[in-house]
Amino acid sequence: MGSVGIVKPQQEHFSEPLPLRSGAVLADYTLVYETYGTLNADRSNAVLVCHALNASHHVAGTYEGEDRSEGWWDNLIGPGKPLDTDRFFVIGVNNAGSCFGSTGPMHVNPATGGIYGADFPVQTVEDWVDAQARLMTRLGIERLAAVIGGSLGGMQALAWTLRYPARVRHCIAVATAPNLSAQNIAFNEVARRAIITDPDFHGGHFYAHGVVPKRGLRVARMIGHITYLSDDAMEAKFGRELRAAELGYSTQEIEFQIESYLRHQGDKFSEYFDANTYLLITRALDYFDPARDHAGDLARAFAIAREHKFLVVSFSTDWRFSPARSREIVKALVDNRIEVSYAEIDAPHGHDAFLLEDPRYHNVLRSYFARIAAEIG
Amino acid sequence: MGSVGIVKPQQEHFSEPLPLRSGAVLADYTLVYETYGTLNADRSNAVLVCHALNASHHVAGTYEGEDRSEGWWDNLIGPGKPLDTDRFFVIGVNNAGSCFGSTGPMHVNPATGGIYGADFPVQTVEDWVDAQARLMTRLGIERLAAVIGGSLGGMQALAWTLRYPARVRHCIAVATAPNLSAQNIAFNEVARRAIITDPDFHGGHFYAHGVVPKRGLRVARMIGHITYLSDDAMEAKFGRELRAAELGYSTQEIEFQIESYLRHQGDKFSEYFDANTYLLITRALDYFDPARDHAGDLARAFAIAREHKFLVVSFSTDWRFSPARSREIVKALVDNRIEVSYAEIDAPHGHDAFLLEDPRYHNVLRSYFARIAAEIG
Repeated sequence: MGSVGIVKPQQEHFSEPLPLRSGAVLADYTLVYETYGTLNADRSNAVLVCHALNASHHVAGTYEGEDRSEGWWDNLIGPGKPLDTDRFFVIGVNNAGSCFGSTGPMHVNPATGGIYGADFPVQTVEDWVDAQARLMTRLGIERLAAVIGGSLGGMQALAWTLRYPARVRHCIAVATAPNLSAQNIAFNEVARRAIITDPDFHGGHFYAHGVVPKRGLRVARMIGHITYLSDDAMEAKFGRELRAAELGYSTQEIEFQIESYLRHQGDKFSEYFDANTYLLITRALDYFDPARDHAGDLARAFAIAREHKFLVVSFSTDWRFSPARSREIVKALVDNRIEVSYAEIDAPHGHDAFLLEDPRYHNVLRSYFARIAAEIG
Repeated sequence: MGSVGIVKPQQEHFSEPLPLRSGAVLADYTLVYETYGTLNADRSNAVLVCHALNASHHVAGTYEGEDRSEGWWDNLIGPGKPLDTDRFFVIGVNNAGSCFGSTGPMHVNPATGGIYGADFPVQTVEDWVDAQARLMTRLGIERLAAVIGGSLGGMQALAWTLRYPARVRHCIAVATAPNLSAQNIAFNEVARRAIITDPDFHGGHFYAHGVVPKRGLRVARMIGHITYLSDDAMEAKFGRELRAAELGYSTQEIEFQIESYLRHQGDKFSEYFDANTYLLITRALDYFDPARDHAGDLARAFAIAREHKFLVVSFSTDWRFSPARSREIVKALVDNRIEVSYAEIDAPHGHDAFLLEDPRYHNVLRSYFARIAAEIG
C-alpha cells in the first residue's frame, strides 16, 4: 500500500450562474479539485469524495516541499489502499463557500467588486452536489462509479442519488444522518453565536476591518471538537490529568490537560478557518433534510434511488451522528427494496472514527470497493 | 400538599477568616440563607439543601409581592411534600462566590476597598461545606438529619460526609458524580473561554468599566443548557421545527425553534448571572475529586463515612452525570459496607430531571425522608 505521492490542485471556472435552493444564484465561481489515479477508457471508474466541515479537495497525497501535508483521507486512498487508485480515478473537490480555494466569502463578489463576506449566498448540500455534477461533466464523467463521504460529506453522497440518480452507481455514506437532530442544530447554533457576537465579526464584513473574529472561531472549534470525540475516548486520552504537578487554583489559567488540548485546537483553527465559511457550512448541515419535501417520510424521498446500491457505515461511540441515525437511512432504503449494506463499527473514537484507520472499518470499505471494481470490470 | 408560603432570606456574617483549600482565606463574609419548617426541641430534624450552578438559598416558597418567585426545589419541599416541612427544618444556603446575596466577586474586598472581581478567592466544594458547617453551628445545629443536593449540590452532600462525618446522618446525592469526566471539564472550559475572551470581561474586573460580558455569558449558558437536556427531550420538544413557515436561508438569523429557545435562555441568563461567579462555580465542579487524596481510590475516600447512610439517585437520560457515574459512588460505598440505597430513575429529561416533579423520583425521596423522620422520632 502506497501513497498517491505528490499531488497538485487544479481548478475549473464556471461562468454559467448556478441556481441555489435559496432562490439566489452563484453568479460565477471556481472549483478547486484534485484527482488521483487514472480515468479508464470508458470513464466508468470515477469516485467522487465529498468533504465535511473542516476539509477540502486535498483528500490524498502530499504537496511538493510541504512536510505533513497528507490529504485528510490519505489513509483510505492510494495504490493498494481500500479506495485503490490503481483501479479507481478519485476526485476530491472543494465546495463553494469553503475557504480552501473554491469561490467563497473571502473572494470578490462580481456584482459589487467588494469582498463577499456575509453576502456570500447561502449554500445547501443540494447546491454543492449541483456544482459537483457540473464539474463531473466538465471532466467528461457522465456517471460516477461511486460517491463517498463522511459526516456532511455523507449527506452529499446521499443527495447525489436523489438529485442525479442516473449519474451515480454506488453511494457510500459514512457517519452521517438523514438530517440533524435538535441537539445537533443546538451545538451548531452556539458555535455560530460565538462567532457572530465576536466584536471582530462586524456582521460578517470583518475583512474590510483588517481583523478576524478569532475569539468566536476558537470557541466554535472547541465546541465542535468535544462533539467529534466520544466521552470514553476523551476520558482515555486526557481523563483528569493536570498540566502541572499541582492544582494552581485559578479560574482563568489552564489546570487540566483537556483544557490545554482544546485551547490548542481552537487556536490552530482560528488561524486558518474563515468565520463566514463556518456559518455557511454549519447552516448547510442544519438545512439538509431530504424527507422534508416528502412530508417527513424518508422512505418516500429515497424512492427515486431504486437503481442505486448503498453502503452505510456508522460507529458505535459516535454521539454526534449515532448509529441510530444511520439505521434510519438503512430502513428508508430497505423500505424501497434498495440494495444496502450496513456496517456498524465498534470503535471507541466517536464521530472522528470515520477519519481514522480502523481495520474493521477499512476492511468493509476495501471489500465494497473491490465489489464495485468487479462490477465496472 | 402545600407551599411553605411567603419566605424571607436571612443572613449571617462571619468575621473569622475561612481557610480555603487553595491556601488563601476568605477574610470576612456573609452567607444568605432561608429556612422552612421548625427546628425541633432536640435540634435533630435539620436538613441542609445544597445548590448547584445556577441556584441559591431560595429553595422553597415565594417572596412577598413577587409572582412566580417559587424556590428552585419548591416541588419537593413543603408541608406534605416529599421533604416535608411539617417534620423537617429545612435550610437553603447560598454559597460564597455565588451571585445571589452571599459574599461574592461583585462585593467589596475588605483588603483593598475595591470590588473583588477576578480576585475573589477560588472556592471548592470543600470550602463551601466548611462555610455551611459554620452556619449550622451558628444556627445551633450540631448534627444534620440529612444533607441533600443535586448535581454540584450532590457533590457538597457527599463532601459533608467526608469532612464532617459526625455532623450528618444521611447523605442524599442526586444526579451527581464522584468527579467530572474529561468531557464535563471540556464543556466547562469552553463556557469559561467564551466569558474570558469576551472583550467586556476585562480580566474579570468589568465592574469598574460599567460593562458586563454578556456575549460570553450567553454562549456559556447556551452550551450548559444543551448538556442539561437529553437529546431525546430536545428532539421531542423542538425537533426540526422552524420558527417561520418557510426557511429564510440565513446564516445569522434564527431558522429553527431550538435556536430561538437557546438564544432566549442565553439572553435571560446574561441579565442576572455574574461572569466571575460562572468561572468560580464551574471550577469548583472541575476540582471536586474526593478520590484524588487517596491515589484515585474512591472507596478509600469514603472509608471515613462508615457511620452514614446514603441515598444515591440518577436519571437514565442524564448524559452530563450519567447513571454510570452514580454507580461509581454506590460501588465505593458498598466496598466499605456502608448502607446505601440507589435509585436509577427512567426519566426522559436528562440532567434537568433532578429539578422536575417525576412521581417515581419523588416517591423515592418521600420514602427515604419518611424513614429518616422515623429514625429521629
